[in-house]
This record gives sequence, structure tokens and C-alpha cells, in this order.
Amino acid sequence: MSKNPPKFQAYSPGIQSLLPMLYVAWADRVLSPSEVQLLESKMSKLTFLTEKDKSLLKSWCNPSRPPSRELFQHWRIVLKNAATKMLSEKRESLVDLGLEIAKKSSREENGQYWSNPETREALEELEISLGLIHIKTYEELFPPNRQNEFIASSFEIEKMTQLLDDDFGEIRRRMRVLLSDPIFKYKTLRDKKDYRNRILEWCTHLAKQGLGALSYPKEYGGEDDMGKYATVFEMLGYHDLSLAVKFGVQFGLYGGSILFLGTKRHHNKYLKDTGSADLLGCFAMTETGHGSNVRGLETTITYKPENQEFVINTPHEKAGKEYIGNALHGRIATVFGQLIVDGENHGVHAILVPYRNENGNLLEGIRVEDCGYKVGLNGVDNGRLWFDEVCVPRENLLNRFGEVDENGIYSSPIQSPSKRFFTMLGTLVGGRVCVPSAGLSAAKSGLAIAIKYALKRRQFGPSFTEPETVLLDYPSHQRRLIPRLAKAYALDFGLTYLRKRYVNRIEEDIREIETLAAALKSYATWFTTETLQECREACGGKGYLSENRFADLKADSDIFTTFEGDNTVLMQLVAKGLLTKMKEEFHDEGTRGVLRFLANRAFTSVAEKNPITIRNTDRDHLLDSEFHLNAFDFREDQLLYSVSQRLRGHIKNGKRSYDAFLVCQTHLIALAEAYAERIILEKFIDAVEECEDINLKTILKKLCDLYALSTIETHKGWYLEANYMEGVKTKAIRRLVDKLCKNIRQEAGALVEAFAIPDELLSAPIAT
Amino acid sequence: MSKNPPKFQAYSPGIQSLLPMLYVAWADRVLSPSEVQLLESKMSKLTFLTEKDKSLLKSWCNPSRPPSRELFQHWRIVLKNAATKMLSEKRESLVDLGLEIAKKSSREENGQYWSNPETREALEELEISLGLIHIKTYEELFPPNRQNEFIASSFEIEKMTQLLDDDFGEIRRRMRVLLSDPIFKYKTLRDKKDYRNRILEWCTHLAKQGLGALSYPKEYGGEDDMGKYATVFEMLGYHDLSLAVKFGVQFGLYGGSILFLGTKRHHNKYLKDTGSADLLGCFAMTETGHGSNVRGLETTITYKPENQEFVINTPHEKAGKEYIGNALHGRIATVFGQLIVDGENHGVHAILVPYRNENGNLLEGIRVEDCGYKVGLNGVDNGRLWFDEVCVPRENLLNRFGEVDENGIYSSPIQSPSKRFFTMLGTLVGGRVCVPSAGLSAAKSGLAIAIKYALKRRQFGPSFTEPETVLLDYPSHQRRLIPRLAKAYALDFGLTYLRKRYVNRIEEDIREIETLAAALKSYATWFTTETLQECREACGGKGYLSENRFADLKADSDIFTTFEGDNTVLMQLVAKGLLTKMKEEFHDEGTRGVLRFLANRAFTSVAEKNPITIRNTDRDHLLDSEFHLNAFDFREDQLLYSVSQRLRGHIKNGKRSYDAFLVCQTHLIALAEAYAERIILEKFIDAVEECEDINLKTILKKLCDLYALSTIETHKGWYLEANYMEGVKTKAIRRLVDKLCKNIRQEAGALVEAFAIPDELLSAPIAT
Repeated sequence: MSKNPPKFQAYSPGIQSLLPMLYVAWADRVLSPSEVQLLESKMSKLTFLTEKDKSLLKSWCNPSRPPSRELFQHWRIVLKNAATKMLSEKRESLVDLGLEIAKKSSREENGQYWSNPETREALEELEISLGLIHIKTYEELFPPNRQNEFIASSFEIEKMTQLLDDDFGEIRRRMRVLLSDPIFKYKTLRDKKDYRNRILEWCTHLAKQGLGALSYPKEYGGEDDMGKYATVFEMLGYHDLSLAVKFGVQFGLYGGSILFLGTKRHHNKYLKDTGSADLLGCFAMTETGHGSNVRGLETTITYKPENQEFVINTPHEKAGKEYIGNALHGRIATVFGQLIVDGENHGVHAILVPYRNENGNLLEGIRVEDCGYKVGLNGVDNGRLWFDEVCVPRENLLNRFGEVDENGIYSSPIQSPSKRFFTMLGTLVGGRVCVPSAGLSAAKSGLAIAIKYALKRRQFGPSFTEPETVLLDYPSHQRRLIPRLAKAYALDFGLTYLRKRYVNRIEEDIREIETLAAALKSYATWFTTETLQECREACGGKGYLSENRFADLKADSDIFTTFEGDNTVLMQLVAKGLLTKMKEEFHDEGTRGVLRFLANRAFTSVAEKNPITIRNTDRDHLLDSEFHLNAFDFREDQLLYSVSQRLRGHIKNGKRSYDAFLVCQTHLIALAEAYAERIILEKFIDAVEECEDINLKTILKKLCDLYALSTIETHKGWYLEANYMEGVKTKAIRRLVDKLCKNIRQEAGALVEAFAIPDELLSAPIAT
Repeated sequence: MSKNPPKFQAYSPGIQSLLPMLYVAWADRVLSPSEVQLLESKMSKLTFLTEKDKSLLKSWCNPSRPPSRELFQHWRIVLKNAATKMLSEKRESLVDLGLEIAKKSSREENGQYWSNPETREALEELEISLGLIHIKTYEELFPPNRQNEFIASSFEIEKMTQLLDDDFGEIRRRMRVLLSDPIFKYKTLRDKKDYRNRILEWCTHLAKQGLGALSYPKEYGGEDDMGKYATVFEMLGYHDLSLAVKFGVQFGLYGGSILFLGTKRHHNKYLKDTGSADLLGCFAMTETGHGSNVRGLETTITYKPENQEFVINTPHEKAGKEYIGNALHGRIATVFGQLIVDGENHGVHAILVPYRNENGNLLEGIRVEDCGYKVGLNGVDNGRLWFDEVCVPRENLLNRFGEVDENGIYSSPIQSPSKRFFTMLGTLVGGRVCVPSAGLSAAKSGLAIAIKYALKRRQFGPSFTEPETVLLDYPSHQRRLIPRLAKAYALDFGLTYLRKRYVNRIEEDIREIETLAAALKSYATWFTTETLQECREACGGKGYLSENRFADLKADSDIFTTFEGDNTVLMQLVAKGLLTKMKEEFHDEGTRGVLRFLANRAFTSVAEKNPITIRNTDRDHLLDSEFHLNAFDFREDQLLYSVSQRLRGHIKNGKRSYDAFLVCQTHLIALAEAYAERIILEKFIDAVEECEDINLKTILKKLCDLYALSTIETHKGWYLEANYMEGVKTKAIRRLVDKLCKNIRQEAGALVEAFAIPDELLSAPIAT
């Protein structure tokens, strides 16, 4: 505690008028000799200063005795307050600020003096002499939260949006306008009944716009356009995910089951009303006891020839249908169960079962229970259904892949029960194409909010005289957000590719697309969960307030990793798909094929694993997309080859196939991940190569490099173990990732702006 | 599709009575010659079979034509349904099951036959001949969800609980009983007002039990026992986290500010009513503009000598107090702000400011705003406060570390403003000791739910004739849950250590304890967030239902990584603490100290990094705690040394200290993590060594090994880069982690049982 503390409150208005300049002059904690000279000579001429003022000022112009930390802090507070109050007005200079404070602190009768032009002139002369007029204004000292200040960029944002919009620009623009309509404004409805009604209302609005039926044939009000439908679902991911899921259940799952598993008779009877949301239905596949293992469903669909009817039965409590969306609003359900005809079980089939009449009353033999509150998606009415010997007409069987005729004879265009089962399940692929896109939209919203906030939020600073540091200038903050921003871009290209493959699919591609969809669905939804968590934390306490949207974004998207196929289960399917493909490729040649594969591998080793390459830390090499792709390929191939060898070994040693796969489970999942990462990288590299706008290309290349290198960094342990890289190289990669983060940080605002999420949808106050 | 499908519905009761045995006989898809002989000869003698039955049975006894998959699946469903219905009764054999089905399928008048002792005898003879009586009962085929079947263990669960309870067994037992009281039963209250009132009510119940005042002196209704208080907070972590946080705000933060920052006059006036919850208060430190950077607070506390009063003022909107718990229920606030006396700013101090009268009406100059809904903790009334020139008497200043006397003279027992600031902030350490424990409780609840569910939930199986696989038998599921279970145990020992250090602290230890608390708070709360997410996903759709508690556990604990010090900021404090300590240790010797440190490092390298050690994959070596500790020490030392070198280099090159630290930020955070991990390992190893019960010791050693090895595995990239291990060793560690997971899986049920979370608190239906 200093013995003679400077007295702030006692300052005269004259002293106060000079405070802004004193503050700035001392801001670097150094008062240069010329500054000292200037201050002393100019100040002595100021007529409004008393002798006492002058001697006080002189004491502050002693370069060896800078003002105490506490005094400076106080100056800062006073100046900042005054500055904050002035921000809406046009004044800009330090003189204005000084005059303002002086005016306020002087008595009423003298206030006039500080509006006097001569006073201003005298102060301005001082300001010019100190060279302050160009270097600092009070706005620079205490920068206000300026909107759009962060979206300076080296590329045209709109062009980037166009590029991301791909072939679906028109429907995307339409959705942006539509969802910004006041009718879709968010409203907190904590009670599930209210919230569900609101979502139903919104869903109906979408149907009225013709959006529900988009993927249906034109004769049923649709456009026969699966790509557009998937894009609508993706765009709903920027809005309320309860709406997205309700929409997906009604038009995609339930409607899709009629479209894909039914035939003309079902289309004619149901599709129009389904697309218009006049007939609400649900997709009753999952049971409490069997979710992932659909083949083990226990509900029975037994044919009764005497009445030409099917009897739907839930054999015991845990065979009840579980988590069924639309269960409380719906009137009809596509029920999956074991089809039993004349004592023979033909495996899982689907049948339409009306369960409420037009007044909404439950039909006989039906029990429905509300699933209650969930982590999120509380605007979706999930419920449980049980069927007690419920009879429906024979025609209700969705009979595209299995029919029972008037004589009670079962027939199917697919002879193998196993193939039939997987064909029917293939109808789920549509969901797996849509879900990751909506998940990515949620992740992009989170990134947009966190990055916009990180560009204006300041906390801590180099000294109490300088502005605090912007969050996104912290390397740890960059590490949290920028690689995820790059991955969001990467996934965008990957998912656009998946959508196109799915929309334009031909029979032979189906299995490959199923593998692709399963891999990207899992990879993207895990990314969503992890990214939203990181973004919430990056926004601190503000991220915890519901108004800033992470509450809903996180809670609603959390189930994306589980529904439409649990990610862990899907990743194993992916690995099995890759193994099957490998086997088929070898099929013609038997062991020789494997040997050739091995020879290829050996070649890779020679080419890529030579002592120079594994230690190569040249920037050009590390930023070479061919190096990235080779590294990704190597990882995938190596995992594929090693797991196939392990499986073969186990089976040779007498393990059953099931047990062999069980033992290799984590290995299989790693393989699936490597596959997903490689595909995404390929599509990103393609996009960079195809891009013609040089500015876009430049920033996209950086994002692609960051995606590639940060992914390699994540797996560096694996690469080092495999001797594909040495420590010197992985360390160089780490440094390069840091550099890319720092570099891309400059355009981070523009890059999230390019997602073109309307303010009405983003909505978070911290992001405006 | 087979041409002559077997007709199940047409089976006679006689055939049906044999189905269970047929099913079991065929379960392995093989019918041995002796089985064929037996079946044919015994069956032919059964009087209740018709000729048609016998010929059908004969067709099923053809070892070269096993029953079709579909037929088998149907048998399975019928048998399982019957078995499920019988489970409550005492019957056990396959014969019982067969008789039951036969009885149900035969007409009323013949039902009697199947209760006939001779019939049973005939079937039992067959059962014995087939050798089925010992190997299979229908319960083995379709195991019911048996409670407690999973808690078989090699150790006494109660003893483990005692060990974990440490010195706080009594208060823990009391809390278990108290919180199981029906008054504390969970209830879904979606509306925040209702929920907050319920939490307030619960909080008052706790106060009535004397739990709020535990840490206060006896004269104010307390027990002067900080350890007990912290344990109560930890135990509340098993219940509703809104209650824990409300409790912590009232008794720990607000009450603690009076206790630690106030003096006798405040204790006498406020402490009793605070501990009894008759006076509700809040802790108004954080501002919208300044959260982590407390020193930058902008609220002013200005002394007015003329009235012997302080004037509390919020200079602008964003300097308002933010996220303040108890803001809506409270009547008084401990407000932190810049203390200005006679124009001099003495830095951040705290003062008591009443803001509501006894009727709950706001006092003049106060504005309070509800923070609204949050991600979670909606039972806590967080709000914002603004003060417009609010006057309070001089005595309200919490004056332990800074006083203004009647003459308006400031004085403090701590001369350095900086030291004074950090001393006052030191009162926050109590919160950092408590928060991670409550977080760990939440994580343990999540692990208990996920592991209990994983021990009974089955999905997919080796074949349709065998039971499906229990989730926890999947290696990927083990990888998700078991290492986290081990880490929960590790953290338990680490946090017990922290609590004891804090409770028994002496002046000289304060800084070390602050570093320790900051490190463990961050490490434990990140663990909580990550673990609850993993557990939710591991429970699939069931985990998404609110009734299974992940909704609240996740949402409520999410802010733990942010409040009581943002983890990222705390981790940098930890690193700075370690650097300071290193500097002090070298202080006496200057450069020579550093050289000696280097020599030590070199020695380590020689001892541990020799070519044999870095490739050593002996099981004994890998399971040696000394190896673990060396590896952890090495990582911490190396990071400490390298970051200090980097900082020194930057500063030498002219960077300011602030900028140097900024550049090294992620490096510093890695160091802090390494420190936390090493401390936790040390405490775990100590606990294993001190354990006298050999059974407990054995399982604890395994858990400790798993914690150590899976942590090393997480950092394997780093170890490989540092050449501390070679790939062959990290691969061996990966395999050993797999093995440990598999091994500990056998006792996983018992290990979560040992957390002794009462069923009423765990509450999730899937965990019962």
C-alpha cells in the first residue's frame, strides 16, 4: 500500500478531461522523453488547470514512477464506463471522451465550459502532438461488440455457401426462408404435451408446403425426389430436432415403409394422406427386448385362413414395441414381426395395423404407453405399443417382398429368407442417409455459436492497460474448435457424396451404399455429440443457458448415435461389409489373390515406409494430399488385412465364426473408422480439386489439410507402432496442426457464416 | 422356401410336450447317433403319441436334416413365452415346460391327462436318458433377469465399501439413510418454479438435520468439521445435483464467504441463520463480462466517509452479476467488487449487501433477473443482479483481509495487493475440493446403472438356439465401461487424499493444495462428463429415457467443468504452480539446480530408456506398479522440463511473459494433466499397499493396473515419440488392457455395488 495514494475522486474536471490521453500515454507502461516533454509543456499552457492540477500532473509524468496498478485499474473503469455510454453516438476521439467526463464531473453552472470550442481546440492540439489521433481512439481501447467484424475473409462467403449447397441450392434457400417465418419461432415449452402439439402443428405446416411427400411419386402429391427430401431433413437439423425427427418418422420411416415395402394397393390407399399428414402413422419395429437384433423380434403376425386375416400378437411384456415415434398422435402403425403362415415362420415382415379410430380412440386389443420424458426430443411423442391378438385384413401385409395369397400360400420374390430379411431392412438405409446430415447441421450450429462467441468474448489480458485477449486467440481454444470446423467441412462433402450415391443407386451398388451409409452415419453422429459438448464448454457459463441453444442441441442430438442403428453395431456391419468385399475380390483367385494383396502391401511398405519417408518433415510433403491419402489408405488396408488374418486364425483354431468376430470386435470397429475417414478424405480432396474459384480452393485446401493432419495426429500412436512414421514426423505434424489452426482462425468467422444458418434459426444471443 | 414346411400349429399336445427336449437336443445343430437311437426308441414307447406324431418325430430325428432355421425360431418363441410365464413358479425342468405347453394346447377335457403322474414319469425317463437333466433346464436356455445374480465376487462388498468410505463412514451411512427417506423421492418437475421450490424445501430439510452448518464453529450450530461437510456434498452427488449445488451455494459459497472473509461481527450476526437456512444468501462474484478473470471485475464498492457507508455500483449492463445461485430465493448477497477508498482502488473485496426485505421484496437500487432455463440444474435459481448506487453500512465489509476504519482509512494484514487478492480467492478452494467429489458420485451412478444393465441386457447371439450375448461380454462394451470403472476407483482415492489435505491444511501447504485441488477438480469433472456420455450410449435407447437418470445426470453435471473455475483456466494455474515450485526448488542453486535436474533426467533416460526396457513386454514388468509410476513420473517431468525450456526461450527472444505462456498453452495443459494422473496413481498405489484384506487387495491391484495401463495407452503416441517405449511394448499394453477388462468384468457388478448407492437414489428401472 503506497503511503500517498493518488486521490481520484478529488480530481478537478480539468484533470479528468486529460485522463484519456494520460491513460493512453501510459498504456505501454513507458513514457518516452519526448512524451514527457510534450505533456509537461502543453499541459502547462492549458488555462483550465489550476496550479494544484499542474503539480499533480507533473507527478504523473515522472517516467520512473508509473501510476500504480490500482490507480490505472480505476482510470480504466471510469474511462470504459464513459466509453460504453458513448458508443451509440458518433464521437470518436480521446478528446471527446475527456470532455464528456469533465462535463459530467463539473458542477452544473460550469458544464458549459466543456462545450466551449476553445477548450476542445486546446485538447486536440495536445492529442495531435502526442500522435494519438491516428493510433488510438477510445473505441480501440475498449472495443465494442461489433457485429460482422469477424467475417472478413479471403473468399466470397456466398460462393462458399453455393459450393456447400451443391445441387440442392434451391430447396436449401427455400427452407432457410420458410423456417425463418415467425410461425417457426422457437418457444420454450417445457411440458411435453404442449411441446408435442407444437411440433405436430409445425409438421403439418411442412406437409402443407408439400415437403413431406417430396420422395413419393407425383401421383401421390410428391416429386419423386429423394435428394430433396433428404435435404429438407438436413435443413430441419438447423431448427428444432424434435421437428426433424417427427418429420422423419411420419414421412420417412412410416411413409417410407409403405413406399418401399408396400405395393400399389397400399400406395393408393395410404400414400397421399400420409404425405399430407392427414393420416399419422408410426414405424413399429424396435421392441423392448430386441432393438439392434431385429431378426430376434418376438411379435407374431399369424395368418388365419378362415377369416383371411392376420393376427398381430405381442407374446409377452418385453416384446412390446418400444420408443415408437408418433405413437400418441398416430392412428396406424407399420408393425414388424415374425410372419407365421400355416405353422411355418417366414421371418420378419411388416404389416399395417390401424390402432386408433378417427376420433383418436384406441382400437380393441391395443395398449399404448407414453415413454415419458427423455434426455431430449421431448417434442416427439415416443410410446410403447402392445398387441393382444389384433386382427387385420390380409391386404394389410406390406407385400412387396412376401405375400400370402387368398389360399393362404406364402410366396416371395426372394427365395433366401436371409436375403429377404436384409432386403427389407435395406429400406432403413434412407434413414441412415438422412440422420447424419441433420446431426451435422446441429454440429454446425454449435460451431457457429461457439466460434462467433469466441471471436468477441475477451478474458484475461497481457496487462491491465490493454484489451483482454479474444478467446479464439488462445491456442487451446483454437485446438478445441478449428479442427472440428475443418471436420465439419470434410463431413459435408462426405455426406453430399453419400446422398448422391443413395439417390442414384442401382441394384448392384446397394450393399456398398449400405456400408457407406452405416459408416458415415456413425462417424458423423459421434462427431456431432463430441463437437456440441466441446462447443458448450468453450462457451463457458453462457453455453449452459438454454437461450444459447446448447441445451437442446446436445440433448436432442444425443440419441443420434443410437437410433437408426446403434453406432457400435453399425461399425461392425461396416467392417463385415469390407471383409466380404475383400473376400469377393479374392474369390476368383483363391489364395493367390491373398498373396497378391500381400505383395501389394509389401510394395507399399517399400515405397512409403522407407527410412527417408517415415522421417520426412518437409512442409511440402506434410501438406501433400497424396501423403494424406496414402497414410489413410495404409491404415485402412493394414487394419483390414490384420483383422482378416486374426479372424482366419481363430476360426482355424476351432472358434465359431460368431466367437471369432466377438474377440476381434474392437479391431473391427477401428477398421470401420479408418474406412469412414478415408472415404471422407477422398471426397474432400475431390472437392478441392474440382473447385475453380482460387480463393475458395485455397481455404478449402487448408481445411482439408487440417482434417487430414489432425486425423493422423489422433492416430499417431497407431502410426508410430506400425512404423509408418517416426516421432520426428508426428511431432512435425502436431506443430503443423497448430499452425493451420492459427491460420484458419483468421477466417473462422467467415467459414461458419458460409453455413448460411439464418439468425432466426441460430437464435443464440451470444452469437449475434 | 422349403416345399413341405413343418406345420407347427397342427402339432398334437403329445408332440408339444416333447418340444423342449427336441429343442435342446438340436441346440448344437448336431444329433449324435446315440441321441438318435435314444429318441427313436424312447419315443416309440410313449403311449400318448399317435402314429402320425411318431412319423413326424422320426422325420425330425434325421441327423442329416436339421430343422429349418424358421422352424427352430418358432419353437424358440413358443418355448420362451411359456418359460417366461413360468418363471415365478418353482418348476425347473424341461419336462415341466413340456407338460405346461401340452396342457395349454389340449382341449379342456383332456387337460387332466397332462397332470397325470405317469405321463410325467415317461417324459422324465426320456429326459434322464438324454442326459439333459443336469446340463440344461429351461431357465438356462432363457435366463430370466435375476436380481443380484451379477454381484458374485471374490471379495466382500461391504468391506470394499468401508474402505472407500475411509474416515467418513458414519456421515456417509447417515446420508444414505436420510436421502432414501420418502421425502427425498425424485419427482419430475419440469417447470422451474416448482422445481426450485422443491429444491429449496429439500435444502431446508438438510439444514434442519444440522448438515448445512457442519463446517461452521460449534457456537453457530456447526461441528467445525469441513471433512464431514465435504462428504455430505459428495453424497448429495448421488441424489439430485440441483440440491447439491443449492446446498453448496448457501452453506459453502455464501456461508463460506462469511466464515472465511468475515470476522467475528459477521459470524455473530449471520452464521447461525445461514446454517439453519433461515437467511438465504448468494455469492455474487462472477459478472457477465468477467468470469474467469475475477481481477477484472467492474462492480465498485466505494467508501462514502460522510455516512460511513459503502456504495455498491454496477457501472454498466455487462458488469452485472451473472449465474448467481440463490438469486431468486436469497435476501442477502456477498458482492465482490473493486474497493475504492478516497479515490484509491484497493482491488477486489467482498461485502454483504442485503437486497430483499423479509417479505421478499427487492430493496431500492437492486435489479434481479432470472437466468431462465439451463442445460440442467433447473432446480437452482440462478439469476443476474445489478446494483444502482446501493448503500450499505461500513460494517458490512467482509474485513478479514481488508478493513476501512471509522476515519475512512484502509488497512490490511496483507501488504501486497496481489497476495491479498489470491488469499481472498483461496476461499474458493473449498468449492474445488467438493465439486469433483459430487461429480465423481454422478459418474459412479452412471457406471452403476450402465454396468448393471450391461450384465442383464442381451442382444445378438451365436445362433438362434442359444441365449443372446450379455452386453458386458462384448469386448467393445468392456472397453467402454471397465477402464472408466477403474478410473472411478482411482479418482476416489485421489479425491479422498485431496479432502484430507484440505481439511488438515496448514498455512505452508496452501499453495500446493490449491494446485492439487485445481488439477483434480478439472480432471475429475472432465471424467464425469465423458463417462456419463459413454454410459448413456452404452445403455442405448433405454439410456435416453429420463426415468433411467442419464438425462439429469448428464445435464446437471455438465457445468461442473466450467463452474468453480473453468477447467481450461484451472489447468493453466496448475502448470504455473508446478513451474513456480520447480523454480523455487532451484532457487538456492541457480543454474546449477537446473543442471542437476538435467542430470537426473539423463539418469532416468539411462535407467528406463535402455533398449531392453523400452521393448520389455514381460507381464510381470507391465504389471509392476514401479514401472507405472516411473512412466507417469517421466511424462510429468519431461513436460515440465520441456515447457519451462520453451518459456525461457520465448522470453529470451523478447516475448512478454504473457505471450510466452499463451504460445505454450496446450503444452501447459498437458503438463497439468500429467500431474493429475501421477498424483492419482500414487494415491491408488498407496491404497493398494495399505490394504490388509487380501481379497480386496487383489481386485484393487487389478483396478490400479488397469487405470495405469489404460492411461499409458491413451498417451502411447507421446511415449512412442519420446522413445520411452517401442511399438512392441505399447501393443503388449493394449492386449493387457483388453485382458484386464475381461478379467475385471467378472466382478464389475460387485465393484459398482460397493459404491453403496441406495436403490432409492440410483432409481433407474434398468438398474434394478
